[in-house]
Amino acid sequence: MTNPEHFAYEVTERIATITFDRADKMNAFTRRMGEDFISLIDRAEADEEVRCIVVTGNGRVFCAGADLSASKSSFTGGTGQDEIEFRDFGGVIALRLFDCLKPVIAAYNGPAAGMGVTMMLAADIRLASTTAKFVLPFVRRGIANESCCSWFLPKIVGVSKALEWILTGQSVSAREALESGLVRSLHEPADVLPAARAIATTIAQNTAPVSVALSRQMLWKMSGCETPHEAHRIESMGIHSRSQSDDVKEGVASFMERRDPDFPETVPANLPDFFPWWDAEADR
Amino acid sequence: MTNPEHFAYEVTERIATITFDRADKMNAFTRRMGEDFISLIDRAEADEEVRCIVVTGNGRVFCAGADLSASKSSFTGGTGQDEIEFRDFGGVIALRLFDCLKPVIAAYNGPAAGMGVTMMLAADIRLASTTAKFVLPFVRRGIANESCCSWFLPKIVGVSKALEWILTGQSVSAREALESGLVRSLHEPADVLPAARAIATTIAQNTAPVSVALSRQMLWKMSGCETPHEAHRIESMGIHSRSQSDDVKEGVASFMERRDPDFPETVPANLPDFFPWWDAEADR
Amino acid sequence: MTNPEHFAYEVTERIATITFDRADKMNAFTRRMGEDFISLIDRAEADEEVRCIVVTGNGRVFCAGADLSASKSSFTGGTGQDEIEFRDFGGVIALRLFDCLKPVIAAYNGPAAGMGVTMMLAADIRLASTTAKFVLPFVRRGIANESCCSWFLPKIVGVSKALEWILTGQSVSAREALESGLVRSLHEPADVLPAARAIATTIAQNTAPVSVALSRQMLWKMSGCETPHEAHRIESMGIHSRSQSDDVKEGVASFMERRDPDFPETVPANLPDFFPWWDAEADR
Repeated sequence: MTNPEHFAYEVTERIATITFDRADKMNAFTRRMGEDFISLIDRAEADEEVRCIVVTGNGRVFCAGADLSASKSSFTGGTGQDEIEFRDFGGVIALRLFDCLKPVIAAYNGPAAGMGVTMMLAADIRLASTTAKFVLPFVRRGIANESCCSWFLPKIVGVSKALEWILTGQSVSAREALESGLVRSLHEPADVLPAARAIATTIAQNTAPVSVALSRQMLWKMSGCETPHEAHRIESMGIHSRSQSDDVKEGVASFMERRDPDFPETVPANLPDFFPWWDAEADR
Repeated sequence: MTNPEHFAYEVTERIATITFDRADKMNAFTRRMGEDFISLIDRAEADEEVRCIVVTGNGRVFCAGADLSASKSSFTGGTGQDEIEFRDFGGVIALRLFDCLKPVIAAYNGPAAGMGVTMMLAADIRLASTTAKFVLPFVRRGIANESCCSWFLPKIVGVSKALEWILTGQSVSAREALESGLVRSLHEPADVLPAARAIATTIAQNTAPVSVALSRQMLWKMSGCETPHEAHRIESMGIHSRSQSDDVKEGVASFMERRDPDFPETVPANLPDFFPWWDAEADR
Repeated sequence: MTNPEHFAYEVTERIATITFDRADKMNAFTRRMGEDFISLIDRAEADEEVRCIVVTGNGRVFCAGADLSASKSSFTGGTGQDEIEFRDFGGVIALRLFDCLKPVIAAYNGPAAGMGVTMMLAADIRLASTTAKFVLPFVRRGIANESCCSWFLPKIVGVSKALEWILTGQSVSAREALESGLVRSLHEPADVLPAARAIATTIAQNTAPVSVALSRQMLWKMSGCETPHEAHRIESMGIHSRSQSDDVKEGVASFMERRDPDFPETVPANLPDFFPWWDAEADR
């Protein structure tokens, strides 16, 4: 399988690394690149060997957002032409990451703007270069929120920061991104990807893929529920299912024997019967 | 139009400034003042010239809360007399700000108590004097949460801070308000209003009013949804609508030409057909 | 009433202190201990004299989680045997705390793991020893989220920290717990319980129990609503009910007379008619 234009893709030590590779255009996204990014997420998700996905960019910029030079279709790149059918393509990408069965780590090697920021809000862990900044300029361009940032951003940095950033359209510095929790840590430019890979390695070597897939979906999907009762219902199915699995035997045994675990079950092959517990078709 | 008693109202440079002007009573709110505050929000919202609203208080105090000296009606100033019809008036104010089509900035020139704190939780941006403190004394007076703070406060400072502050009724210092995110920044008393106006000016000069109205409502209303799919649906309508607007042409052109934008569309005149996307009548 | 095995229970100065007392097993929880813990919460809740509940552990550890040595039933301690009936017992405990009519303060005297961390996420206030650490190792053992942490953890530390902690399974230091808001403050080991009791005393001496019960349930239950309108509806009932109570008379009088209040109404005896406003049976 060859890699799509403008992307590098490689799997090493159970980690899939997806690199935006259009540095001469500051990795600005065309509609085609969005489709290819989703197909690479599909590939990593389907690969039993992959335990974690790292996303980064080549060059000094992570992603300059939608490619404005590609005509107005950068803002109208939806799947339909009329209002009912039209779908914001940044949102399609964000929802794909939201549904992903494997953890996604965003390694911001440099500045990001527009959907370069927002589509990665559905990643689980974000870290950045000290050279990064984050631009959410929608109200300065005459458009409005996209990539489902109306839902993700308040969950990540709180509703007050989200409102200030979005309503002023001012750039967010690397420092403010750190302090607000938009990114977990800052690193020298050359250290960003290694730091992301170190976290990915922790996940790849120490955790059970089925447990990770279940827990990831539980956190994202239950965080928005009205009360904890739905979480209790789904978690109970998870505990019931997992407590009879070969993974829990290995998890307890390796813990008792103080050794690294070697979990037998993989994703997506070994997901339990109750997964997905939501109506995945209705979400499409 | 004359200003109501106990308020100053002026519009300069596209910014409406509403000032509580009852310093001899520490700007304590009567029921009448609540009604007048709402009518001033209505006025600013309806004025095509206004791009942003700043709320502050005269004197050393922002607002001492409901006017306890105005009899027990301070706690019973609802719109009906029986349990079914009664409505907390602080909540009526908070919901008016929540639905506002223009950004609201609260400039806490000094201490605030009760609804002086809570009705402004529906503002988008809050900043405060170093002399401010925040008192949420409901459980110490034998009443309970009001002004919809049960919903707003956890979204702004997290559920743990909200619980501690509300269940102890202890004062929150300016420093703790900053660290918890209740306010975005602290300033010397004389610098609070200028700092608020500086942010308002950024919004007034650089952003498209329709984009701001849409994005503000998207953030507040989508932040509480169970999943991002409703955000995707509404954002898609926003992108579809805005990408065909005169505003986006000006937004992209001014960006390419590296000049300040001059957006042609105003609020409320030019809101798109799909707005409001919720049942606004049902919310009343 | 004698105390159950592995627990100390005492009421002094209106504060019930529940102490995990199985230090030789690092206070690891058996199913039986879970049932006894719930019965002690029941006892404190029913006791009109008790205004606040403090939970701590004897020895150097707060709670090592489910007792793994008690066979695999530590992970299958539900109320039913098949998938439909099975209920995660940590979740049963968390939901009991969630519904509690009195504030709960967790005093982490030392490290906590698994349900030792997660069941206490439903406490209102958490503080910890500098010797504490927090381990959420579910994905390293081959199981998945439990004790409703999918719902509680993102509300307390934000969804990004929750995802990182859960998906890596790495230990969280006392320092990171403080910075993320998992705990409100750190103390020397000997000072943790006194600090917790100081907060409990503030609640016990200065607040109206009915107001506290209402406000606590409003914050927890409204924080997850889609919009503030339901909060407005319930708060309005609360204000209407409380403004006619003997408690508000004492609250205002003691404030005007600058003395400590002596509220006449108690919990659960004097809860208003509209409480609970939710379908408590459906939640069971």
